[in-house]
Amino acid sequence: MRADGRKYDESRPVEITTGFIKFAEGSALIRCGDTVVLCNASVEDRVPPHVRPGCGWVTAEYSMLPRANRERSRRDVDKLKLSGRSAEIQRLIGRSLRAAVDMRRLGERTITIDCDVLQGDGGTRTASVTGGFVALALACRGLLEQGLVKAMPIRHYVAGISAGIVDNVPMLDLQYSEDSRAMVDLNCVMNEQGGIIELQGTGEGRAFTAREQQELVALCAQGNARLIQLEKNILGEIL
Amino acid sequence: MRADGRKYDESRPVEITTGFIKFAEGSALIRCGDTVVLCNASVEDRVPPHVRPGCGWVTAEYSMLPRANRERSRRDVDKLKLSGRSAEIQRLIGRSLRAAVDMRRLGERTITIDCDVLQGDGGTRTASVTGGFVALALACRGLLEQGLVKAMPIRHYVAGISAGIVDNVPMLDLQYSEDSRAMVDLNCVMNEQGGIIELQGTGEGRAFTAREQQELVALCAQGNARLIQLEKNILGEIL
Amino acid sequence: MRADGRKYDESRPVEITTGFIKFAEGSALIRCGDTVVLCNASVEDRVPPHVRPGCGWVTAEYSMLPRANRERSRRDVDKLKLSGRSAEIQRLIGRSLRAAVDMRRLGERTITIDCDVLQGDGGTRTASVTGGFVALALACRGLLEQGLVKAMPIRHYVAGISAGIVDNVPMLDLQYSEDSRAMVDLNCVMNEQGGIIELQGTGEGRAFTAREQQELVALCAQGNARLIQLEKNILGEIL
Amino acid sequence: MRADGRKYDESRPVEITTGFIKFAEGSALIRCGDTVVLCNASVEDRVPPHVRPGCGWVTAEYSMLPRANRERSRRDVDKLKLSGRSAEIQRLIGRSLRAAVDMRRLGERTITIDCDVLQGDGGTRTASVTGGFVALALACRGLLEQGLVKAMPIRHYVAGISAGIVDNVPMLDLQYSEDSRAMVDLNCVMNEQGGIIELQGTGEGRAFTAREQQELVALCAQGNARLIQLEKNILGEIL
Amino acid sequence: MRADGRKYDESRPVEITTGFIKFAEGSALIRCGDTVVLCNASVEDRVPPHVRPGCGWVTAEYSMLPRANRERSRRDVDKLKLSGRSAEIQRLIGRSLRAAVDMRRLGERTITIDCDVLQGDGGTRTASVTGGFVALALACRGLLEQGLVKAMPIRHYVAGISAGIVDNVPMLDLQYSEDSRAMVDLNCVMNEQGGIIELQGTGEGRAFTAREQQELVALCAQGNARLIQLEKNILGEIL
Amino acid sequence: MRADGRKYDESRPVEITTGFIKFAEGSALIRCGDTVVLCNASVEDRVPPHVRPGCGWVTAEYSMLPRANRERSRRDVDKLKLSGRSAEIQRLIGRSLRAAVDMRRLGERTITIDCDVLQGDGGTRTASVTGGFVALALACRGLLEQGLVKAMPIRHYVAGISAGIVDNVPMLDLQYSEDSRAMVDLNCVMNEQGGIIELQGTGEGRAFTAREQQELVALCAQGNARLIQLEKNILGEIL
Repeated sequence: MRADGRKYDESRPVEITTGFIKFAEGSALIRCGDTVVLCNASVEDRVPPHVRPGCGWVTAEYSMLPRANRERSRRDVDKLKLSGRSAEIQRLIGRSLRAAVDMRRLGERTITIDCDVLQGDGGTRTASVTGGFVALALACRGLLEQGLVKAMPIRHYVAGISAGIVDNVPMLDLQYSEDSRAMVDLNCVMNEQGGIIELQGTGEGRAFTAREQQELVALCAQGNARLIQLEKNILGEIL
Repeated sequence: MRADGRKYDESRPVEITTGFIKFAEGSALIRCGDTVVLCNASVEDRVPPHVRPGCGWVTAEYSMLPRANRERSRRDVDKLKLSGRSAEIQRLIGRSLRAAVDMRRLGERTITIDCDVLQGDGGTRTASVTGGFVALALACRGLLEQGLVKAMPIRHYVAGISAGIVDNVPMLDLQYSEDSRAMVDLNCVMNEQGGIIELQGTGEGRAFTAREQQELVALCAQGNARLIQLEKNILGEIL
Repeated sequence: MRADGRKYDESRPVEITTGFIKFAEGSALIRCGDTVVLCNASVEDRVPPHVRPGCGWVTAEYSMLPRANRERSRRDVDKLKLSGRSAEIQRLIGRSLRAAVDMRRLGERTITIDCDVLQGDGGTRTASVTGGFVALALACRGLLEQGLVKAMPIRHYVAGISAGIVDNVPMLDLQYSEDSRAMVDLNCVMNEQGGIIELQGTGEGRAFTAREQQELVALCAQGNARLIQLEKNILGEIL
Repeated sequence: MRADGRKYDESRPVEITTGFIKFAEGSALIRCGDTVVLCNASVEDRVPPHVRPGCGWVTAEYSMLPRANRERSRRDVDKLKLSGRSAEIQRLIGRSLRAAVDMRRLGERTITIDCDVLQGDGGTRTASVTGGFVALALACRGLLEQGLVKAMPIRHYVAGISAGIVDNVPMLDLQYSEDSRAMVDLNCVMNEQGGIIELQGTGEGRAFTAREQQELVALCAQGNARLIQLEKNILGEIL
Repeated sequence: MRADGRKYDESRPVEITTGFIKFAEGSALIRCGDTVVLCNASVEDRVPPHVRPGCGWVTAEYSMLPRANRERSRRDVDKLKLSGRSAEIQRLIGRSLRAAVDMRRLGERTITIDCDVLQGDGGTRTASVTGGFVALALACRGLLEQGLVKAMPIRHYVAGISAGIVDNVPMLDLQYSEDSRAMVDLNCVMNEQGGIIELQGTGEGRAFTAREQQELVALCAQGNARLIQLEKNILGEIL
Repeated sequence: MRADGRKYDESRPVEITTGFIKFAEGSALIRCGDTVVLCNASVEDRVPPHVRPGCGWVTAEYSMLPRANRERSRRDVDKLKLSGRSAEIQRLIGRSLRAAVDMRRLGERTITIDCDVLQGDGGTRTASVTGGFVALALACRGLLEQGLVKAMPIRHYVAGISAGIVDNVPMLDLQYSEDSRAMVDLNCVMNEQGGIIELQGTGEGRAFTAREQQELVALCAQGNARLIQLEKNILGEIL
């Protein structure tokens, strides 16, 4: 029995509010327990130089508001440095969301997903992937409805969740009080077929076995399936 | 008659949600029409070097989320520069909120008010002053309730609003579509006695007369009185 | 009677040396009492992207030399940050000087006014506006004399001065020793018709009334009228 | 059969030169095929503020020389930004090497492992972990030999290697020409017991199944076992 | 015969105004022909960590105002980088002025010499050395007069000048129009005994012989002797 | 007799390994005693804006790895600043190597020489010039062999070495333990005809006479002649 009464394989309640910001081409506020992330997708008609002609690009930026956590942290601009943690996380989000998109269908456009954590209670990076996917899909649907693309550029539903080993018990969707005690921590991004897109496991307190790792991935698969069902409820069948 | 049906001396509907973020010592989400600012107050037990012994300090930081506006803007950290506009605005907010506080009563503490604009539709700096004041007062009340200060450090209610001249008509509380056409723009921060704390007027399209300036201040006085009444409804009598 | 023997409505002696720097298209060294600012106008044949076709742009940069004040301050480049105070001030100077110029007549050119404070004794921002206007007008006259513009791009004389309330007495043109004790501080930029272009008032020690504010503006109007007369003596009738 | 004639489960030849730099407390130049990384460990008698009293800290920095790759890249200092890729990688190396150390035995010291890639041909992050471990162990042995610590602070051998799926074939230790065509890419850091410390898998071209993921981990386990044997040959039994 | 009528071994007229800025402990405005540098010395009661106990430190900063030259240059803070040229020059000035000072006599103080070029027409680095020396000596004299040091910390007069080879003719004290055509350029800092403190020669257009180099040093010796005589006229005998 | 048994006019053993890095157009690892610098030349088909049409450009970057010295130093990117020392040195290297090249023959290309100090024991800047020249010459030979240039763009062999006065004895090629005690330090870059390209002398401990300076230059001439002979052995006759 966990601190908030959840079972070991139970994820926190998730709520996604679409259209939270009226200007963004796609906007979703995601709440996973006490973790709150505002995800906004912006479409621009240009691509970075490394992209092949005729193709589009998807990228993500991740940031914590200064008081998203128990203690205030200085703004990145005040330190003139993007925090290493944010750099690592936004690269994960970007890779995850690119896997959801058919870049030829998107055409020569960049969609930037801004994930700003308003409140952090564990699992902000995976909440950003899930909320960011909804914002991305809304922006793509807008392109389709306006006739700017011929077919829906989304080719997969994508969601992310974490699992970890706390007191030697594998658990799904750690909140902060669990996360800070976890020996092993694993983030997993999957698509609607259960295919793995991103997998990041860290033995912070001790190493873990291949078997333990498989258990954690299996837990994440359950959680991600529920998240993708939620995405389908919100977005409908978009593939 | 204005675009949204308001009268020339009518301000937009204002809604303030307290406790929006659970970690901050004071938290308020303010909506003024379509302008939405998250204001969080953080208390820290140290003061900058220039502060006199026994006294506290209040400072503010202001930032726009990248997609708060019609077009996405690059993050400050990406440019390695705080935007000049943000620097100007956060200095205004800081001066305004310091005027609300008795620094001796506060004691050797710093309260930082983070104002993050989630959506911008004109008047973000004055909404930040009003929402920031509520967050500040909540943090101060917490200090009092925990016995960390002996008397309430707030000595004035403070609120801010803008007015401007559009098509030669003075109007209160410009929204973005009015603001972008305004010839003259004036921001005014006042206390519960109608005393002026900050006044910033700019003749962007043409110069203005002392009489016009007085009319704009009088409009702001009306708007600020209503805002301070709202603050009293939320906070009660705290002086 | 004030520290330096001036009357409450008397401004400090002002001296403007034109052509202080031989390379700039317009150059003026302004001395207001012990405040000394070097103002140089540079003309470049390009405009920033936000400017409408066929129009010009005017912008300002403001900086204090490290030893302009009683204590040495570190250079901005050493801190890798433009100081917030400089950012605020150079935006004020830029807005003020843009109000002096007919951007169509200027054509697709940018005039940058660099205001470098060699010595600061209060009123550096308003001295920068006044000295910067002279540099700007000289640069515009040069464009006219060389046939690069068809009509003088200056449409108004512009000058700036401060006033404040010290020991409850409103006073014009505060020097540093007065400024540091002032309860209320107001900067005002006006044109040759007495029209207000920029107005910034701050109640640092206490709030102020609308009546007090009017008195301070009236004092500034006197001071600015004298400054504009000085500008006419130097530049001749240029409108 | 692979481009360089290796079998699918064969890693590149690895050569580790210890003492490459004479000043560092631990120094190792690692060559994995054409990937060359200089790893230097520096011991300092202070720890960052977040470390518990009596404990030490291990951290890593990773950088590519400008011409480590096929095309020259600008230096980070020239862009005033640590590249996001470097930030992500040095966090991985730091976590991996901290798992090798008993922080109580280390005492209040920081060991910084600088990993500078002289030539990059795929697998630079895992080569940095392996080479960095040797430099770290040498520095720890020095502390023991000088009597500055009472027991060897190393508690595990640690090594890292990558595997990936190229043309649907799982392969160990991708070189650049394989890596750039890989559909799936996985990095794995392990200890001498086969325990997993870090696991990062990415489906760049397509998602992957849990079974594929297990195959890749199994390949890495083979490669890491060989690397740890090499570490034992170089360092002797140090646990 | 040179462009401005000078003979090949004739330096430009030099004028040094002391006390140009009233706040600095030492202040000198130096004009060498059309080159104008404001040199201010600031005394602070602390030294950088590398300085031996009981000793002082002297350092210099050098900067060009944006419009010191024929074309406006962007401010360093705008680029977030000290220009490489400024970095090179301020190191030269710092080394030159440290050679003038007895650090034991100075005691645990830092004197910072700010050299800001108001107008540049060649020879700004050597003008900074000469003007900076006067500012430094004035600050040291002030320390002596206030009884803060027991003996004058200056142990040598120091001055700097340049020479170069233009059209195969060695010439003293190049102005910009000569400097930009020079094949060889040499800067030389000397003391009152003719001892060399800094020597920097560059063959920009062609290499030069040891004999040519000796001729250029001999020219500089003549120029520096005249500059040191001027310093003595201004400062009196201070050794 | 010197610490390492060398005679006063004897330089340290020098070893140059070409092709150390396989990707660079020219690569040389130079060892001068315990000083080790990796010099890589990269060719790019564009030139900076200030270069005349039809001509090429040569530039250099210099950096120390964090643990090149007795104590670890923070990376430049961590401080967000290129160190002033590195800025000064890379300008020297760039000027020296430009003197070796006929820019018309090079055509509209930039060759960047990256000099990264792996281990520093005195004389890193002159070792960078010598090693950098070999890398540059190799890159130029590659251009010739590929038919991209019609004639060899190298017009001079270039090498650099230092000399200094230690205990009043002039000595060639100071190592760190000598350099840190030297009263006078001089760096000299020369070509195959003994022509001087760069000369930088500093009296850190005391001033020096013109005669002493000539002795130091004469010592450097001996050392540079030997270095240029080594370059010829490696590169063959390339002029």
